[in-house]
Amino acid sequence: MNTQSPSPRTQVKRSAHNASYEPALLHAILDAAWICHIAFGDAKGIHCIPTACWRSGEYLYIHGSNGSRMVRQLLEQECCVTVTHVDGLVLARAAFNHSMNYRSAVIYGRFELVEDAGKRAALDAFMAHLVPGREHEARPGNDREFAATTVLRLPLAEAACKTRTGPPKDDEADLALPVWAGVLPLRAAGGVPVPAEGCTTPAPAYVSGWQDRPDN
Amino acid sequence: MNTQSPSPRTQVKRSAHNASYEPALLHAILDAAWICHIAFGDAKGIHCIPTACWRSGEYLYIHGSNGSRMVRQLLEQECCVTVTHVDGLVLARAAFNHSMNYRSAVIYGRFELVEDAGKRAALDAFMAHLVPGREHEARPGNDREFAATTVLRLPLAEAACKTRTGPPKDDEADLALPVWAGVLPLRAAGGVPVPAEGCTTPAPAYVSGWQDRPDN
Repeated sequence: MNTQSPSPRTQVKRSAHNASYEPALLHAILDAAWICHIAFGDAKGIHCIPTACWRSGEYLYIHGSNGSRMVRQLLEQECCVTVTHVDGLVLARAAFNHSMNYRSAVIYGRFELVEDAGKRAALDAFMAHLVPGREHEARPGNDREFAATTVLRLPLAEAACKTRTGPPKDDEADLALPVWAGVLPLRAAGGVPVPAEGCTTPAPAYVSGWQDRPDN
Repeated sequence: MNTQSPSPRTQVKRSAHNASYEPALLHAILDAAWICHIAFGDAKGIHCIPTACWRSGEYLYIHGSNGSRMVRQLLEQECCVTVTHVDGLVLARAAFNHSMNYRSAVIYGRFELVEDAGKRAALDAFMAHLVPGREHEARPGNDREFAATTVLRLPLAEAACKTRTGPPKDDEADLALPVWAGVLPLRAAGGVPVPAEGCTTPAPAYVSGWQDRPDN
């Protein structure tokens, strides 16, 4: 893959010290995501649509109904897919120096259709991404269900990451001001699992441990 | 505002039962957001860029450096701005019926420049959105800082929301399968505040109470 050298589109110009083209960082940002936002155009204009995503190897995958407008459009044009995690509010002494800590990944390219042979494995990988282990427990898709689902994948060949971490950066002149400064962390935390009505099956480990995940 | 009747662009077609054009829901989704994703085009293609946002009245606001490519482009064209909250993973008995609970808002339109007279009030509102009360404590912007900052606002006139809540919807034939089903909730939770090195000012209530916010 060539994400270690930016293209004209992925060359970060604003706060370029926060940019990275490292595949390991790109993978980590994508693997921590439940959803991405996809920007694409059609006759009505430009759209920004959220959808579930998962990574396998050097591709980002999405799925949709066969009839979806977005699925049809994405096969016909280049698009831009972005994943963003907000990690904290950065409170500086001066209003102007407030910021956020975040990790974001932007990918440019064209989605390609995942043919039938790869579709089932891709959807298993999706389930394993959401809740590892459940791909062996849930009732697998049948032919009708697989036929109704389109899976697309986007090569990670043209991508850039941008991150900010750490404390606020105040001007020297502001450091003595009697204003609290620091970071208010944020994270995607799990809440108490809610069993469906009538569910008598004991909770598996990925449910009972939902609130104990490392990033919780 | 006319968000109660969809435009050709905001008419939700896919899972239309999940769509809403209610201003109160739109406001709630935007007010719970730290960031939005903005889709816009330029000579290099279509981009999807995350940025901080806040709502005042019937506008969504963003800010940026004067020289930002996005700021320049957004004043010259229509765009699409999306806010998405992932509220939980929905685990059905069948792989095919898995879903996510979420709240999303999609807004179409053209950003307009907030002139100097409104800029300071808008940036105060931004601070009050991030950490209510802090707009009275942080060192206010000076003329140089305000001059370096561009504030834009987008009317909420053409917008749609889409949400999913509640339990999985399994096919009747799958209900008796011995597979746990239910919802794994997710939320943006606050972590332990991290004071900046050298900060001796006691933590104000919005810092000491960061982990006790209602949505934590």
